[in-house]
Amino acid sequence: MARTSGLDERSGCPINLAMEALGDRWSLVILRDMMFGNRRHFRDLLNGSMEGIASNILAARLKRLVDLGLIAAAEDPTHKQKIVYSLTEKAIELVPVFAAIGAWGRKNLPATPALAARARLLEEGGPQLCAAFMDELRAIHLGAPRPTGPSVFARLAEEYDRACAAEA
Amino acid sequence: MARTSGLDERSGCPINLAMEALGDRWSLVILRDMMFGNRRHFRDLLNGSMEGIASNILAARLKRLVDLGLIAAAEDPTHKQKIVYSLTEKAIELVPVFAAIGAWGRKNLPATPALAARARLLEEGGPQLCAAFMDELRAIHLGAPRPTGPSVFARLAEEYDRACAAEA
Repeated sequence: MARTSGLDERSGCPINLAMEALGDRWSLVILRDMMFGNRRHFRDLLNGSMEGIASNILAARLKRLVDLGLIAAAEDPTHKQKIVYSLTEKAIELVPVFAAIGAWGRKNLPATPALAARARLLEEGGPQLCAAFMDELRAIHLGAPRPTGPSVFARLAEEYDRACAAEA
Repeated sequence: MARTSGLDERSGCPINLAMEALGDRWSLVILRDMMFGNRRHFRDLLNGSMEGIASNILAARLKRLVDLGLIAAAEDPTHKQKIVYSLTEKAIELVPVFAAIGAWGRKNLPATPALAARARLLEEGGPQLCAAFMDELRAIHLGAPRPTGPSVFARLAEEYDRACAAEA
């Protein structure tokens, strides 16, 4: 059967398909850095990687995420030789998935308090905070109108900085 | 540094740790079959696999899930030569993660209606249904007292059967 999704589609179960798309060590970690850290260039994603992603793996995963329609690549208007990556709507809709996985990882795995600070905030904020954050990501990545109200992105970043400072 | 978690711990970020634990094509698919299909023996997991998991991969993933404390292996009291696998509390707490991933996959990937039926029910039921399902899984897998009220497990199975029949 012809596959148009870029997936094997071993079954049409949504969990299986999601694991075919995102079931590797790195894809969600790259999307995390784009989403919460606003890293949009190859160099920023490579040099800023806490987990020390290798250059060839980052390149391969970015290509795969583009092929799957989770990120879009465009020439950076300010630096013609650079590519800028944006999250698509599909990837922005992963915010509740990040919230659920972050909450689980925070509770069940040896997460450090500073790095778990954003997960805690997302968990405590519930669906309303997720929705506000998604609207803000649509403004940052898709050119949608910027939502009114305080920035969730800034609050998540502040929480992270505060937790890092407390740990140091 | 000594690692007691069985993970590389390239960073203490909960998303990264969760991906180190579950970031492969098969682990969540196996946990799904144990959780929603109550498949507890190697043969059932192998022969019932919609995605056609290979025997050697299933064996390796089961061992890894035991090592990570996500499933427990015990001798089946009714068949001495057989191993029965149970979900641990850690794995049962993945129910909201399954709900979030299922909702995302149902919307954004080419999921078939029958196989997406359980995901839809979990999504519509919200945190309350997740909590009731987790209590029921604690009774099935951990020997906790069976909760009162209608069985979520049975409702999910019925929904699945109804959707499969409608598709056929």
